[in-house]
Amino acid sequence: MQLGIIGLGRMGGNIARRLGKAGHQCVVYDANPAAVTALAGEGAVAASDLADLVSKLSTPRAVWVMLPAGEITETTVDALAGLLGPGDTVIDGGNSFYKDDIRRAAALKEKGLNYIDVGTSGGVWGLERGYCMMIGGPKEAVDRLDPIFATLAPGIGNIERTPGRDALDPRAEQGYIHAGPAGSGHFVKMIHNGIEYGLMQAYAEGFDILRNKNSTDLPEAERYDLNVADIAEVWRRGSVVSSWLLDLAAIALTENADLTNYEGSVADSGEGRWTVLSAVEEAVPADVLSAALYARFRSRKDHTFGERLLSAMRFQFGGHIEQHGS
Amino acid sequence: MQLGIIGLGRMGGNIARRLGKAGHQCVVYDANPAAVTALAGEGAVAASDLADLVSKLSTPRAVWVMLPAGEITETTVDALAGLLGPGDTVIDGGNSFYKDDIRRAAALKEKGLNYIDVGTSGGVWGLERGYCMMIGGPKEAVDRLDPIFATLAPGIGNIERTPGRDALDPRAEQGYIHAGPAGSGHFVKMIHNGIEYGLMQAYAEGFDILRNKNSTDLPEAERYDLNVADIAEVWRRGSVVSSWLLDLAAIALTENADLTNYEGSVADSGEGRWTVLSAVEEAVPADVLSAALYARFRSRKDHTFGERLLSAMRFQFGGHIEQHGS
Amino acid sequence: MQLGIIGLGRMGGNIARRLGKAGHQCVVYDANPAAVTALAGEGAVAASDLADLVSKLSTPRAVWVMLPAGEITETTVDALAGLLGPGDTVIDGGNSFYKDDIRRAAALKEKGLNYIDVGTSGGVWGLERGYCMMIGGPKEAVDRLDPIFATLAPGIGNIERTPGRDALDPRAEQGYIHAGPAGSGHFVKMIHNGIEYGLMQAYAEGFDILRNKNSTDLPEAERYDLNVADIAEVWRRGSVVSSWLLDLAAIALTENADLTNYEGSVADSGEGRWTVLSAVEEAVPADVLSAALYARFRSRKDHTFGERLLSAMRFQFGGHIEQHGS
Amino acid sequence: MQLGIIGLGRMGGNIARRLGKAGHQCVVYDANPAAVTALAGEGAVAASDLADLVSKLSTPRAVWVMLPAGEITETTVDALAGLLGPGDTVIDGGNSFYKDDIRRAAALKEKGLNYIDVGTSGGVWGLERGYCMMIGGPKEAVDRLDPIFATLAPGIGNIERTPGRDALDPRAEQGYIHAGPAGSGHFVKMIHNGIEYGLMQAYAEGFDILRNKNSTDLPEAERYDLNVADIAEVWRRGSVVSSWLLDLAAIALTENADLTNYEGSVADSGEGRWTVLSAVEEAVPADVLSAALYARFRSRKDHTFGERLLSAMRFQFGGHIEQHGS
Repeated sequence: MQLGIIGLGRMGGNIARRLGKAGHQCVVYDANPAAVTALAGEGAVAASDLADLVSKLSTPRAVWVMLPAGEITETTVDALAGLLGPGDTVIDGGNSFYKDDIRRAAALKEKGLNYIDVGTSGGVWGLERGYCMMIGGPKEAVDRLDPIFATLAPGIGNIERTPGRDALDPRAEQGYIHAGPAGSGHFVKMIHNGIEYGLMQAYAEGFDILRNKNSTDLPEAERYDLNVADIAEVWRRGSVVSSWLLDLAAIALTENADLTNYEGSVADSGEGRWTVLSAVEEAVPADVLSAALYARFRSRKDHTFGERLLSAMRFQFGGHIEQHGS
Repeated sequence: MQLGIIGLGRMGGNIARRLGKAGHQCVVYDANPAAVTALAGEGAVAASDLADLVSKLSTPRAVWVMLPAGEITETTVDALAGLLGPGDTVIDGGNSFYKDDIRRAAALKEKGLNYIDVGTSGGVWGLERGYCMMIGGPKEAVDRLDPIFATLAPGIGNIERTPGRDALDPRAEQGYIHAGPAGSGHFVKMIHNGIEYGLMQAYAEGFDILRNKNSTDLPEAERYDLNVADIAEVWRRGSVVSSWLLDLAAIALTENADLTNYEGSVADSGEGRWTVLSAVEEAVPADVLSAALYARFRSRKDHTFGERLLSAMRFQFGGHIEQHGS
Repeated sequence: MQLGIIGLGRMGGNIARRLGKAGHQCVVYDANPAAVTALAGEGAVAASDLADLVSKLSTPRAVWVMLPAGEITETTVDALAGLLGPGDTVIDGGNSFYKDDIRRAAALKEKGLNYIDVGTSGGVWGLERGYCMMIGGPKEAVDRLDPIFATLAPGIGNIERTPGRDALDPRAEQGYIHAGPAGSGHFVKMIHNGIEYGLMQAYAEGFDILRNKNSTDLPEAERYDLNVADIAEVWRRGSVVSSWLLDLAAIALTENADLTNYEGSVADSGEGRWTVLSAVEEAVPADVLSAALYARFRSRKDHTFGERLLSAMRFQFGGHIEQHGS
Repeated sequence: MQLGIIGLGRMGGNIARRLGKAGHQCVVYDANPAAVTALAGEGAVAASDLADLVSKLSTPRAVWVMLPAGEITETTVDALAGLLGPGDTVIDGGNSFYKDDIRRAAALKEKGLNYIDVGTSGGVWGLERGYCMMIGGPKEAVDRLDPIFATLAPGIGNIERTPGRDALDPRAEQGYIHAGPAGSGHFVKMIHNGIEYGLMQAYAEGFDILRNKNSTDLPEAERYDLNVADIAEVWRRGSVVSSWLLDLAAIALTENADLTNYEGSVADSGEGRWTVLSAVEEAVPADVLSAALYARFRSRKDHTFGERLLSAMRFQFGGHIEQHGS
């Protein structure tokens, strides 16, 4: 079927490619004309601006916005709302905060427009493997666009089936779900990323303890000089901690077991933070997800003001002078 | 080759079965004669006690002890040390604390005996899938027993290879490693379990936030009634949080999305605790692994003394009366 | 000087009493006529509604709103904004979220009104000891009301002076500060409460470890049956963990060392939650303040969904059956 | 009464001074002769070695060892055990691990010697204020030395009494307790220090959030440039977070509100670590005490291996390049 796509970065471009290969017609636009030309060379229909893109779609139209969360997504959705008509659909495939989705969906609904939010996981591997998608929005609009979602999804592949799925919604096994009303897609994706932070931090701490087991601060008889690349590899085979993230850790450790090619200043995105805010709103204890987020905050600092205050209190109390490198 | 096996519980029995199927000869003993008879019926050689077992092995002998960590393992290893001779090997395949391994290995070495510690992951799935093994001990003894380890390991299977492994120890890809000297096998397995706790807690918190998103404490427009079984399933397909543990979560949630068949009193074993002790010894910050352990501690209590003290301080300060069910 | 007070609960009533004793004239109103009558009997001027209260004040008027944070404070401030005139001042002495203060202050400023937010600490002890106050709002308005704040503050008392204070704002030593523009008073109070949660949790955990040192799970030679009331008391004398909160803990433990008169379901208020949200907004790692909040969340639950998921994954993996009371 | 004192550092020297001023006779020894001479000049009896010290005491003798925990304390206690006789008492006033106390007490008991462990809090302020003491050991020996403990303790001072203390052990109010058998004094002191870490970290995080409220990452309308010295000061007056540690924070922040005279590399001692180990042994959740310890670990590192692994996984997954200073 036909789909407008706005934003042809790594994600948007690959989505257009995966859809095009499957025979869907993508009408594409990006602020960077070169990106549009490149996709047009691979079979997409080029659009020169939003109005042009809308004019090249037949009704009911559907436009997938794949832009960074925040102002640019907001203004693009607003502009589309002025160009589209009743029955048309705007899809936000970015990483918007789900409360923004709820607000936008309500605004578009007043004009008879549908708003769908899609959280996607799959990163740079998505073009090949397909995208895991969590979708929020009105049932009719989500159902009508099913061919698009089915194409983008990874499909059942060679992953073992979960017993008892026959009686349940078949889409989940294909790699996409209709999670609920507006915002629910991004909400589920947000929690997904929160969990991702926790999983990553668990591996990070574990490998840190393995790596430091050769510390000269330990009794000599209790030191080991462990091969962390081999350990990551062996855990990929039949161990209960096997996972895609462990696969990635194994790749990195195999390249350079000391990871000296990385500094360790770890960015965080909105989703990790919003997950903590949701836990607080719901009064759900989320010690691990919060600790994982805070470890990233700390990783980007030299020293915190709080640490200096600890040193100061220690000095005032006991005359403890800071020992450097201790 | 030939192997003595002591302890025919779920793990030991399946190890004997997997070895027997591959043509190895297992001489087996268990305090429960029925377990011995059962294995003998599947082709193993029955032994009536430790001395009988030792007498039925040709030198250099190797005996795999597969018993619960603690006193029973300790006394069995001691007894074997008195029955075996120089060049023989004792393998502790249980979940012993690695410092006990270091101590035992030194004691056995004085008698010319080899001590090997094997940490295994794979649970009840190991018979079919194979066991992921982390091995500590003297190189010669470990190398000599390679046919045993190679049989027990899952092998490379259909899991994608990590780029760059060709130049590295091929055993890791097969699902077993020689981690280092005595104790290192159990140490690596211990950290494995510590990580497992962290991973599990990350999923637990994330699904908790998803499940409570329908709480009536939230504004009505921000509530979702999410299908957690479908969410677990969709994340198995192409998402970055896919893992074996997620597969297990999906099975459980597909059976009963409310998990009302579980109470939530979560046991913990030595490994999770020892991981925290090692982090403290090495001065490695391990917030996530500790929080995961503490969540299990807390899950087994009604209320803590600490919580009562919080209520008491609040009452003393502000006359706050406890609100039940709030 | 003259001050209108709306809300005569425990805090508002005591504030009126402390001001009245010092010769200030309070014009008081509460939705409950009995509360108004009671205060009038102690010398305050009774008002029958907001309009009556405003009419009984001379310009420039100042009205202190001492109501629960949320809708009732919002509507009262709105109503006052319609009754007061340019140069008048509304004081929110409750526990409002500081972003609400910022919004309200901007709205009132358009009408020429001043908005002051006051965070107070002191609980039921404030009438006698005085209130520690953190004040946000326009300098002129705060300065004009200085006699009110100076009366309510505890004063320097017999607490030792901090060296070097002579050169600094004398109000801090008296127990009140002008923290900055609108919202800053409540912001500082909010962080105060966040810290309070952390301090309380530190004591709670420490006494929990002391109390459980007689656990039969420990080796007999390492068990102690400690007197926690005596321990709290001794720490009040010259120890570095002495504090007001410890004084309160000592009172409670002296009454009942087992604290069996408390259940341990611990409420939390907005400030503790907002502190975590601010930490996340500022990317400041706040592991302790978050953990303290989460411990309160957990204290109010029987079991979490997350804990049931842990049990479920354990069962799926290894056939672990839950052990109750373990 | 008479007391031998070994180790005349900051703590031991001041203990001798405080005892001497009160009329007790101290026989003192230190590996550094100058320290002995100095104390002798203030009225103490100088000893040239352990044997000389023992010879200058009348039976039943009591010797207070005030040395760093570890080997030097161990060897000194051993040496004293060889010099003293039945009925004599060795006091370890250092920061020994309580399990070492249990072991030593058992060894000394075989020779008819008493072993007392004393945990002290008070730091450099103790000479003037007195020392808060937690004492473990046999009742008779502790009772006999009561005059020593009573002199060292701060006494009831001007600190308000806890209601209901009349019926209880009067020593706690004076600032010392007999906690229980050998090791219990150091155990209680250990938990004291664990709590201290938690309290300090709560203040550190809170002031960190206050200090960063002027971050340019925040919306301009929500930034405050707060005076943290004034905030610390005002909280000392009538607020529920007032404490001795806050007094110390106020001193440091008044000297230099940016704390640029401190770097923030925060040492940790055995007690903080042992507290976490005890929590794990007792299965008591101790999220705050652990997080406080880990924050100190992290403060002494540039980047952790774990952080580099996070960067590596992020790069492998999504091609995320590290952003420095972000």
